Amino acid sequence: MSEPIGRPGGRTARVRTAVLEATGDALARNGLHGLDLADIAAQAGVGKTTVYRRWGSGPALVADLLVDMAEQSSPRVETGSLLGDLEANARLVRKTLDDPRQGPLFAAIIAAATCDQRTAEALQHFYDVRIDEWTPCVEQAIERGEVPAGTDSVAVIRAVSAPLYYHLLTRTDQISEHVADTAAAAAETAAKAGVFAID
Amino acid sequence: MSEPIGRPGGRTARVRTAVLEATGDALARNGLHGLDLADIAAQAGVGKTTVYRRWGSGPALVADLLVDMAEQSSPRVETGSLLGDLEANARLVRKTLDDPRQGPLFAAIIAAATCDQRTAEALQHFYDVRIDEWTPCVEQAIERGEVPAGTDSVAVIRAVSAPLYYHLLTRTDQISEHVADTAAAAAETAAKAGVFAID
Repeated sequence: MSEPIGRPGGRTARVRTAVLEATGDALARNGLHGLDLADIAAQAGVGKTTVYRRWGSGPALVADLLVDMAEQSSPRVETGSLLGDLEANARLVRKTLDDPRQGPLFAAIIAAATCDQRTAEALQHFYDVRIDEWTPCVEQAIERGEVPAGTDSVAVIRAVSAPLYYHLLTRTDQISEHVADTAAAAAETAAKAGVFAID
Repeated sequence: MSEPIGRPGGRTARVRTAVLEATGDALARNGLHGLDLADIAAQAGVGKTTVYRRWGSGPALVADLLVDMAEQSSPRVETGSLLGDLEANARLVRKTLDDPRQGPLFAAIIAAATCDQRTAEALQHFYDVRIDEWTPCVEQAIERGEVPAGTDSVAVIRAVSAPLYYHLLTRTDQISEHVADTAAAAAETAAKAGVFAID
């Protein structure tokens, strides 16, 4: 009996996993120029026709990879204080961007997004998902009275990530833990002072 | 009498100006894939051989463009307060990144830096120059007693730019003046609280 197509965990899912892993490897290794569909099919051990039929283009592969990355990302940590939560977030982002595979992968995807609208939209959606995962830590800080009511939780979480991505993309040295902790402390201090409060 | 080669403002300088303008136009219009030396020579009205002999490669052109961009950049503004100075800096960065030519040009150069070491080093040098232009506003704030002695002036200036570049590279909407002013206010508040002080 042949396996039903589309069953979760079945052949369709295994093909997707293999193709997206090969896509991530190619981007991490060769940057945004590494996206050759035939190479990726060969690397994934999947027929070229399957990759062309199911994804059809490099940007479509990257968009699907970003959906998968959002699903696979680590869940939020709760430490009981805003500073602790933002530090946990900053260290997680730093660990990702400093990782020898993940760092170049993110840089390549961001580079690809500068020259492809579909990739740019998929990337924005990826960050929307990641930010939604972490905004409750700001909402809890509002409930605890740590930061003013009306604080823009999205802006706070983005303020933590920004210095780490800026470092990845404009500097050639590694991102230190000090940079991550400073990003968290700066965002927390500004949030407590009401800088991110919406009038 | 033929014009002396290399005289400032002479033929050599005019060729460089034309070639770098064509390079910037190509990057802003076509992204990092737009760097064809023959096209750039034609666009600049310069012989192909001159461009190949003098620059030789796309990354060399981008590196020289970054040197020129650093030289042409606006000087620092002095307002008498750290918040005023950082707001002026944030608004200048925002104006640049929101500009229909400059925004795509910066995005393309940052994308090019993710896949070329020489471009990455030239980009880092460009930001070093720009940061050096603005760090005196933090040093003056230390002298005025606005922020603690030992505040890392480079970290403060980078904290102002980071959210604006992060927005440019991860979002598809424009950067509002609110985002710029919030970046300045967050950096100033954190600096005053000693977050950027080096122990």
